[in-house]
Amino acid sequence: MPPSLNDLRYELALASRVLAHEGVLDAFGHVSLRHPTDPDRYLLPRSRSPQLIEPADVLEFTLDSEPVKAATEKLFAERVIHGCIYQARPDVMAVCHHHAAAVMPFAIASVPIVPVFHLGAAIGADMPFWDQRDEFGDTNLLVVKPEEGRSLARALGQHPAVMMTHHGATVVGGDVRELVSRAIFMCQNAQYQLQAHLLGKVSPLSSGETRLAGTLNAMPNVVGRTWEYWSMRLDHAGLLPPRSAPVRKGAQSGGKGRSKTRAKVRRA
Amino acid sequence: MPPSLNDLRYELALASRVLAHEGVLDAFGHVSLRHPTDPDRYLLPRSRSPQLIEPADVLEFTLDSEPVKAATEKLFAERVIHGCIYQARPDVMAVCHHHAAAVMPFAIASVPIVPVFHLGAAIGADMPFWDQRDEFGDTNLLVVKPEEGRSLARALGQHPAVMMTHHGATVVGGDVRELVSRAIFMCQNAQYQLQAHLLGKVSPLSSGETRLAGTLNAMPNVVGRTWEYWSMRLDHAGLLPPRSAPVRKGAQSGGKGRSKTRAKVRRA
Amino acid sequence: MPPSLNDLRYELALASRVLAHEGVLDAFGHVSLRHPTDPDRYLLPRSRSPQLIEPADVLEFTLDSEPVKAATEKLFAERVIHGCIYQARPDVMAVCHHHAAAVMPFAIASVPIVPVFHLGAAIGADMPFWDQRDEFGDTNLLVVKPEEGRSLARALGQHPAVMMTHHGATVVGGDVRELVSRAIFMCQNAQYQLQAHLLGKVSPLSSGETRLAGTLNAMPNVVGRTWEYWSMRLDHAGLLPPRSAPVRKGAQSGGKGRSKTRAKVRRA
Amino acid sequence: MPPSLNDLRYELALASRVLAHEGVLDAFGHVSLRHPTDPDRYLLPRSRSPQLIEPADVLEFTLDSEPVKAATEKLFAERVIHGCIYQARPDVMAVCHHHAAAVMPFAIASVPIVPVFHLGAAIGADMPFWDQRDEFGDTNLLVVKPEEGRSLARALGQHPAVMMTHHGATVVGGDVRELVSRAIFMCQNAQYQLQAHLLGKVSPLSSGETRLAGTLNAMPNVVGRTWEYWSMRLDHAGLLPPRSAPVRKGAQSGGKGRSKTRAKVRRA
Repeated sequence: MPPSLNDLRYELALASRVLAHEGVLDAFGHVSLRHPTDPDRYLLPRSRSPQLIEPADVLEFTLDSEPVKAATEKLFAERVIHGCIYQARPDVMAVCHHHAAAVMPFAIASVPIVPVFHLGAAIGADMPFWDQRDEFGDTNLLVVKPEEGRSLARALGQHPAVMMTHHGATVVGGDVRELVSRAIFMCQNAQYQLQAHLLGKVSPLSSGETRLAGTLNAMPNVVGRTWEYWSMRLDHAGLLPPRSAPVRKGAQSGGKGRSKTRAKVRRA
Repeated sequence: MPPSLNDLRYELALASRVLAHEGVLDAFGHVSLRHPTDPDRYLLPRSRSPQLIEPADVLEFTLDSEPVKAATEKLFAERVIHGCIYQARPDVMAVCHHHAAAVMPFAIASVPIVPVFHLGAAIGADMPFWDQRDEFGDTNLLVVKPEEGRSLARALGQHPAVMMTHHGATVVGGDVRELVSRAIFMCQNAQYQLQAHLLGKVSPLSSGETRLAGTLNAMPNVVGRTWEYWSMRLDHAGLLPPRSAPVRKGAQSGGKGRSKTRAKVRRA
Repeated sequence: MPPSLNDLRYELALASRVLAHEGVLDAFGHVSLRHPTDPDRYLLPRSRSPQLIEPADVLEFTLDSEPVKAATEKLFAERVIHGCIYQARPDVMAVCHHHAAAVMPFAIASVPIVPVFHLGAAIGADMPFWDQRDEFGDTNLLVVKPEEGRSLARALGQHPAVMMTHHGATVVGGDVRELVSRAIFMCQNAQYQLQAHLLGKVSPLSSGETRLAGTLNAMPNVVGRTWEYWSMRLDHAGLLPPRSAPVRKGAQSGGKGRSKTRAKVRRA
Repeated sequence: MPPSLNDLRYELALASRVLAHEGVLDAFGHVSLRHPTDPDRYLLPRSRSPQLIEPADVLEFTLDSEPVKAATEKLFAERVIHGCIYQARPDVMAVCHHHAAAVMPFAIASVPIVPVFHLGAAIGADMPFWDQRDEFGDTNLLVVKPEEGRSLARALGQHPAVMMTHHGATVVGGDVRELVSRAIFMCQNAQYQLQAHLLGKVSPLSSGETRLAGTLNAMPNVVGRTWEYWSMRLDHAGLLPPRSAPVRKGAQSGGKGRSKTRAKVRRA
């Protein structure tokens, strides 16, 4: 039995906040999930910083990245990233686009991130680079047109992630937890790789090691441990998403989720 | 209808605290706003660390940087930075002078900060350098004389920011929110640029990309998202400025704003 | 009189949380203690992130790394690291395996960590490297087979720590507090060494200094001070382990320890 | 009228905690003040981590670093650093010895810290290096013998600070607030200098700028602002020292100060 839509909305809010709290997302970036029963739809929050997402913010989109119900909310300009990848990759159930500080130096210097420790193997052996300028010339670097999204999805190919020159990265997963751990381990890998480069020669994992260690982040023992840990850290910071969806009312809706969480912290 | 003076005082306190909380300001640095109805005046707090500013700390100055009402409070020694820029740049409505850790290495090594990611384009293509020593010889590096302020304003020219050798930077904006996001993105850009330099070759945005992406930080969709995020982070830390201006009484006034905010955190 | 098993369970939970809070451990890594009265057994928590360990999570193992009582809990896959070291090193009473961010660049670039400040002398003069690939070819880099554990223990030899290529490090101690300070000082040493390398030439302590300063971290005056400090920081963050072992019930047991600690913070 | 001993005890506890909270001190390091009315005595806490110091921990010492009253408390092994400097430098009223992360790379690579920004001028132009090994051969690097203390004081000479190879630094001030700001600005200066070195050529202030800017950190306007800011940050973290000295009782005394502070945070 697939998870309910309500459960997935909460899971998506939780994943967004975990990734923000662990330094992958900041004011920007977004996470989506493929619809649990209709593979031609996906779930993505309205335009809002990831650490503020609550279940009620999550909307449904077609794979053309049109909202299923006419939406009054502001929408992410770059949602074609998600739709085009779900179209091109039936195996992908979760997508995250981000500008994490750890990957930006690589996106700027056009230096490949290579797996340098066992958990970093989750990023695969040959992460591709995509430079919007190559195909589309000068732009503001936002991925907003369907042809830009399709071009990015082509560059991603069958890889777990794709670097975006002068912009950031996009990571995919077979489920939300694999996505979250892959995105976090990729940032750790990038940080260690940069410092190893400063120390001397960076030697990556062998291709055999990359293949064998590349599934560690999906092992139940590992996923169970990381999910409990990252959720605990978020909870300890008073930042868990609210369980039930509050009624939204225009300007007021801004602080709702957080206020609720804070209230819990304060009251106890 | 322009915002009320009271609203702007709060906005200025909020902007100061956001910039401190996001690592642009520390014990030092200051933010000012042009007066909403009288372009020949500007608003600047009394001399106090930015994270402590409250609306009642905000005073009015002429563009000669003299207080409009005789002031008993201590004033920032470097307020000519603000007055001289408002005189030279009618388009500027907000100014921030800072010593952010991210820009200091560039101010010391005299290496230009160039836009290396889409949001960093907010700093423009050719940020000028100003070295007080060139025109004024040995000083304590504080910008206190009107001729020093005018010299800095000339160096700024029509740019969004100017680097100050061995000292820091000064950033301007068309409104307070554009200023805040520009100052934050400039610091991120500097940090990424330094690390990209360590990895290999730094390739900046093309001039076309810089022009097109240079307005992202003023897009309503982006500003709305960042402002909610940065305010939420400040609120979550218990550091929002007090809404109403407390009566100030000499030595006691120090902790007022903070205490109030803390009380809210504690009580709930 | 040796400490009671209950005291040691608490000490092990405390040490795990201190090492997590000070940045040595994250979602991964584990700490074990030799049994206080039976040198052929050791104490290790069930598989769980170190910052969540509570006394009730601590299980007993034989030196073959088999649980003394049939266990329903998930166990760490890499517990042979602990068993094999206790077999090879009768003097060792405490073991920590970790992937601290500070040591990873050295584990990746295969650059030796050498003592560069007085407290760093706790790591000894010639820390060995162990690359699982040398003896076992391509693996997922987890140390799970007894022969892998024995190989690692041989590489450790009589040293206080061993580096694990592309993986992390393993540190040992004559008691839990010596272990904790050695692990923390080793990370500080690595961080300072990398930055000194960037500044210029790294000159290590002389062998005489390393020998003389190498016992600082076991001096009662030093251990007393550090233990009070690290415990205070953990307490101040609301993360001390619960004193008494709560009854565990399946899924619920996850947040127990933390919730208890949090409750204390909230109530007061 | 000089400040009362009670006021100075509190000031010393506050300075210790501020320096710990701002990253200059950690588990180690110590701050002392010269006695306000008897220049042949100084005040130094019993052996304890700086962030835990409370007024009741502060003891009196002769300039030979002997306790004025027979002490049952554990004392810092390195207190000759303080006594020997007060003997050699009548102008010095406050001393801090530390191992701040920011200065360690310079202490290890033997690279001079030079003033690279206006506030960094507080460290003076030519900071001396002292290597205990030069005069005393292999030691554990602790400064414990009177002749070691005198040697260090000679190296300090009339400078504001002295680097200690493979160990850390010692900083002095004309009063406690000048000392605190000098120690903090020295760490910022070191951090910026290292990063400027990575970017390109480090150009220090001119000697005239160093002289003129070297008194900024003692200007009332600056000291007032920094002291309010650093104290506010400490208060906001719930770490202010207790005002009145609690009765100490052996083992229990450990957490007193903090608990009191925490209680305030919790109750409100």
